[in-house]
Amino acid sequence: MSIKEEILSMGKRAKEAAQVVASLSSDEKNQALEKIASELERESKKIKEENQKDIRQAKEKGLSAALIDRLTLNDKRIVQLSKGLREIASLEDPIGKIESMWRRPNGLLIGKMVVPLGVIGIIYESRPNVTVDAAGLCLKAGNAVILRGGSEAINSNCVLVDIISSALSKTKVPVFSVQLIRTTSREAVKEMLRLDDYIDVIIPRGGESLIRTVTENSIIPVIKHYKGVCHVFVDAEADLAMAEKICFNAKVQRPGVCNAMETLLVDKKIASTFLPAMIRKFREGGVEIRGDEEVRRIVPDVKPATEEDWFCEYLDLILSVKVVDGLDEAIWHINFYGSHHSDAIVTKNYSKAKKFLQEVDSAAVYVNASTRFTDGGEFGMGAEIGISTQKLHARGPMSVGELTSRKFIILGDGQIRE
Amino acid sequence: MSIKEEILSMGKRAKEAAQVVASLSSDEKNQALEKIASELERESKKIKEENQKDIRQAKEKGLSAALIDRLTLNDKRIVQLSKGLREIASLEDPIGKIESMWRRPNGLLIGKMVVPLGVIGIIYESRPNVTVDAAGLCLKAGNAVILRGGSEAINSNCVLVDIISSALSKTKVPVFSVQLIRTTSREAVKEMLRLDDYIDVIIPRGGESLIRTVTENSIIPVIKHYKGVCHVFVDAEADLAMAEKICFNAKVQRPGVCNAMETLLVDKKIASTFLPAMIRKFREGGVEIRGDEEVRRIVPDVKPATEEDWFCEYLDLILSVKVVDGLDEAIWHINFYGSHHSDAIVTKNYSKAKKFLQEVDSAAVYVNASTRFTDGGEFGMGAEIGISTQKLHARGPMSVGELTSRKFIILGDGQIRE
Repeated sequence: MSIKEEILSMGKRAKEAAQVVASLSSDEKNQALEKIASELERESKKIKEENQKDIRQAKEKGLSAALIDRLTLNDKRIVQLSKGLREIASLEDPIGKIESMWRRPNGLLIGKMVVPLGVIGIIYESRPNVTVDAAGLCLKAGNAVILRGGSEAINSNCVLVDIISSALSKTKVPVFSVQLIRTTSREAVKEMLRLDDYIDVIIPRGGESLIRTVTENSIIPVIKHYKGVCHVFVDAEADLAMAEKICFNAKVQRPGVCNAMETLLVDKKIASTFLPAMIRKFREGGVEIRGDEEVRRIVPDVKPATEEDWFCEYLDLILSVKVVDGLDEAIWHINFYGSHHSDAIVTKNYSKAKKFLQEVDSAAVYVNASTRFTDGGEFGMGAEIGISTQKLHARGPMSVGELTSRKFIILGDGQIRE
Repeated sequence: MSIKEEILSMGKRAKEAAQVVASLSSDEKNQALEKIASELERESKKIKEENQKDIRQAKEKGLSAALIDRLTLNDKRIVQLSKGLREIASLEDPIGKIESMWRRPNGLLIGKMVVPLGVIGIIYESRPNVTVDAAGLCLKAGNAVILRGGSEAINSNCVLVDIISSALSKTKVPVFSVQLIRTTSREAVKEMLRLDDYIDVIIPRGGESLIRTVTENSIIPVIKHYKGVCHVFVDAEADLAMAEKICFNAKVQRPGVCNAMETLLVDKKIASTFLPAMIRKFREGGVEIRGDEEVRRIVPDVKPATEEDWFCEYLDLILSVKVVDGLDEAIWHINFYGSHHSDAIVTKNYSKAKKFLQEVDSAAVYVNASTRFTDGGEFGMGAEIGISTQKLHARGPMSVGELTSRKFIILGDGQIRE
């Protein structure tokens, strides 16, 4: 079978499976999630063995320690996978809910019912835990899923989906509800992106080149999970002790993730008061600072920031810092250079907080809190499949509720249109 | 300036304008809509003159009477355009609404705020009234819009947008909030579809080839407005008099629109009772019937339907008719051959109605009413920009509320992530 035929038949099987999953009860879906969770725990030895193959290959290829860490599945992480599935099972089932219903003058009752999206294609990079999380969230929302992970995690992904399939075969959820593209050929992705008769949405999670490939080639609607160039703006009327805590947390607590701060903006009125101590603290935390001219006037040994720095997602202990002339320049900078992900203001001034909330065009806009909270779990939405950086369909953290669509239901007594 | 540069500069101007429109008050937007409405009425002579040029060219090209009718703007239709804008002004302004807000254990208040989508690109075919309706709906929801109409309506579209621009120049809404691509070159569309830095969503309204071109070439998220292959299923337990009224209305009342019935499905238990009179009535209404074998056994002079008929959107007084073996086959047929637009069951049986509502995978699913009601106005949502046939973002009739996105707002007191 050619790759094209193989991907097509995966699409057809997924669509058939999706019709079955869509009609299952919450209990039937939850039982399947529980079954997968327990089988993953039972098979942890096998998972670790296959994962070791990926790690060995990654080491041979000389991949970075950080990347190898992302790849690694140990006992603790396998338990977390199962725990995650049980948490997903405990979430409210959105499917079948009638969100609103109204009566028209002609007597028609019109309502909006929550329904599954159908078949979801997920294209992601190294972390094999995404395989399990994504499968769990898609099933909970009544969807089938076709997964395409990174080639460096292929052995781990294969064993995880083998275990999921074996677990599903003992439940009401069809085995083909969760499928993995097992070839690492790029052609498979291109074929997948053309299956608009069978796949309803593609969710790419990864870096610039992955996102670009998907948006360039997909004729299926895409929900992008793209980079986070996040900002904290320290206003002239900020509580500077609070600002220091928030900025440090936003940059240092976990620098390799999309909701970490990449650029610090400081009002010029307090820059010379705030920056020396702040930069000292960052340096103690191992952060390299790149500043504009004004920052370097205040703290002379700071490296100069270039135009590219303002657009850059470092995902590392590097921070660009700019002094701005008040709120308007801060908002302009964020909307122009940012990636519309997560941005914060620290201020005691009510009007400035309100203006910042309204005018910053980002998925998550904060007052007096760290940008690190942009996360389905932290927002109280449950586990997340990722963070959408586009405006269509879902924006910000996406959980079960964002993996659904709606249909209108219309109840009549013989109404016709005049 | 090359076409590429021209389209790029339209995109940039639209994005700047969108930032202004997004921050206007409801009153400021409504005053602009009222201004456009009154200027259109005042300039009706000029509109008719330009429209006549399009009609003359259409006649020279030998376009059909139906198409020329769609192109035509007369006094009555111009008044309707203004009336439509005033209706849009009277709709509730969705922007700035906080749909829900909740408190996390750490004290963070998290809310979802309705915001504009940003810049909307609309690509449509012949009817010039779309130019005004789309501009009005986009502005009401705080967006800027770039319009690309059909070449056959170019003179009408140009004069309409000239009047809109002139009206806007006397209001708080920036003139570049509504722009028209004035070249009829196809290159302009291709360039438009690549402006993902400036356009947030593309809405194509039209036939198969337009939709195909857009989905193949767009790197911007698309909301498809595609065809309606709509069904009515007459169940064995239907009120046959009601069924006859609904079927006749769904097919004949306005056959050229997407929510008209294209295929009639009849349960075999009542086929020989129901079909002879129903087909007679359709024929009196000028409808050509194409039937499967069973239909032709009951009414021998019916033309045979081919496999292609079941997929076909006639948009004309033609109807395919099939006898099915109960509800399951009807649902299967609708989900397999239909376009997931609008489908109805006529039945007195509660369980069958419930099953049909749950299992038919369409934007609008009806019990005991004509499919012709699928329309923003008829659903009580106000004027519509079209009917989405995809599952992402918006499905079914799209009005002002569907031309918006959301952002999370997070209000803290210095919270950091541990």
